[in-house]
Amino acid sequence: MDEYPSKLLQEAIEQFSSLPGIGRRTALRLALFILKQEPSKVKQFGNAFIKLRNEVIYCNTCYNISDTDHCSICAHPGRNKEIICVVEDVRDVMAIENTGQYKGVYHVLGGIISPMEGIGPDDVRIKELVERVKNEKTSEIIMALSTTMEGDTTNYFIFKKLKELNLKITTIARGVAVGDELEYTDEQTLGRSLMNRVLYVNTLAN
Amino acid sequence: MDEYPSKLLQEAIEQFSSLPGIGRRTALRLALFILKQEPSKVKQFGNAFIKLRNEVIYCNTCYNISDTDHCSICAHPGRNKEIICVVEDVRDVMAIENTGQYKGVYHVLGGIISPMEGIGPDDVRIKELVERVKNEKTSEIIMALSTTMEGDTTNYFIFKKLKELNLKITTIARGVAVGDELEYTDEQTLGRSLMNRVLYVNTLAN
Repeated sequence: MDEYPSKLLQEAIEQFSSLPGIGRRTALRLALFILKQEPSKVKQFGNAFIKLRNEVIYCNTCYNISDTDHCSICAHPGRNKEIICVVEDVRDVMAIENTGQYKGVYHVLGGIISPMEGIGPDDVRIKELVERVKNEKTSEIIMALSTTMEGDTTNYFIFKKLKELNLKITTIARGVAVGDELEYTDEQTLGRSLMNRVLYVNTLAN
Repeated sequence: MDEYPSKLLQEAIEQFSSLPGIGRRTALRLALFILKQEPSKVKQFGNAFIKLRNEVIYCNTCYNISDTDHCSICAHPGRNKEIICVVEDVRDVMAIENTGQYKGVYHVLGGIISPMEGIGPDDVRIKELVERVKNEKTSEIIMALSTTMEGDTTNYFIFKKLKELNLKITTIARGVAVGDELEYTDEQTLGRSLMNRVLYVNTLAN
C-alpha cells in the first residue's frame, strides 16, 4: 500500500501524515494538491510554518502568542490587570474574547497536566503564574480549563500552589449549556448546576 | 472569530486552510501543533512541500510521478509495453498495482475532463496519449477512469481521438463489487453487471 513511485512524494506524504488527524490517504491527496499549485504559492505555503516556528513571540506577561513582547490584551489600558484568567492555550483566549464578557487579563499555560501523555507541572507555565501573582497586585484568579480529568488535576495543582497567597480563586461555572434541554443533560453536569445554583435576580443583571 | 493575536499565526492558519478539506478551526489546531515541534522538524516539514513542487519529475513516457525521467514501471523489462492502461492520477496507478493483476504499462492523464471545474481536453494529457499510441506499437488501451460523468466524458473523448487508429479499446468492468449484496446494489450498476455478464467458466480462470 505504501510504495510510492517517488521519494519526494513519499517524504511529503510522511510530513503531512505527521500532523494530528491526517492519515496517509489524506496526506497523498494533499500532496497531489500541492503538485497542482504554482511553485511560488507552494514556497509561501511551506515557509509560513517555518517562519511561524522560528519567529513566534510569546507575550512576556501572559505567554499568549503575540506579534510583540507585550501582547495587545496586556497592553490595553482598559483591561483590569488584577484579574487573571488561567487558560490552556490561545484557542481558549480567543473563545473567551469572543464572548465580549471579560475585561481582565490572561495567563496561558501552554498545556495541561496530563500524566497519560507525560506532561507534568513543569511542562506548563505554572511556575510563571506563581511568580507573576507574587510580583503583581492580583485580586482574583479565574481558572478556565477544560472540564476534563486533566483540567481538574491542573486546577487542583495550581490551587495548592497559590493557596498560601490568600487570593480569591474561582473557576468558571459548570452547568447546563445555554439552549440545552434538561432531560438530555448528563447527571454530573446537572448535579453541578444544582449545587452551584445562583440567585435569580443575579441572572437578570446580564 | 478570525481575529488572531499574531500575524504569523494567522498566515500559517490561512495556509493550512487553503488545503482541501481543512477548515479554519482544524488549521488553528495544526498551527498550534507546529508550534510545539522542534524548529528543525518544522523546517523539514515546510521544505518537503517546496522540494516536492520544485523537483518533482514526471516519467517521459507515462507521466506518472517518478524519481527519474523513466519511471520504474516503464523501465521494468517484465511489463508488456503494448498494453496501456489510462488512469487519472498516481493514486489509480497505486491502486491497480496493489491488485497484482496488471502487467502492462500506464498513461497518467493528470486529471479528468470536467466542464464544471473548467478542465478541458487540453488540460489533461490526451494529446500525449495519442502521440504515444501513434509512435509505439500498442495492442490494447484499457480505460480505467472513475465511473462518474467526468470519467465517462473523458472516456468518450479519448475513444473518438483513437478510433481511427483501429486499436482494441476496453474499459474496466462496471458491476457489483466483490462482497456486496445484490439487494443493496444500485439499479444502474446492477443493470450494467447484467448486460456485461461473463461466461462462468471464464471466472474460474482466476
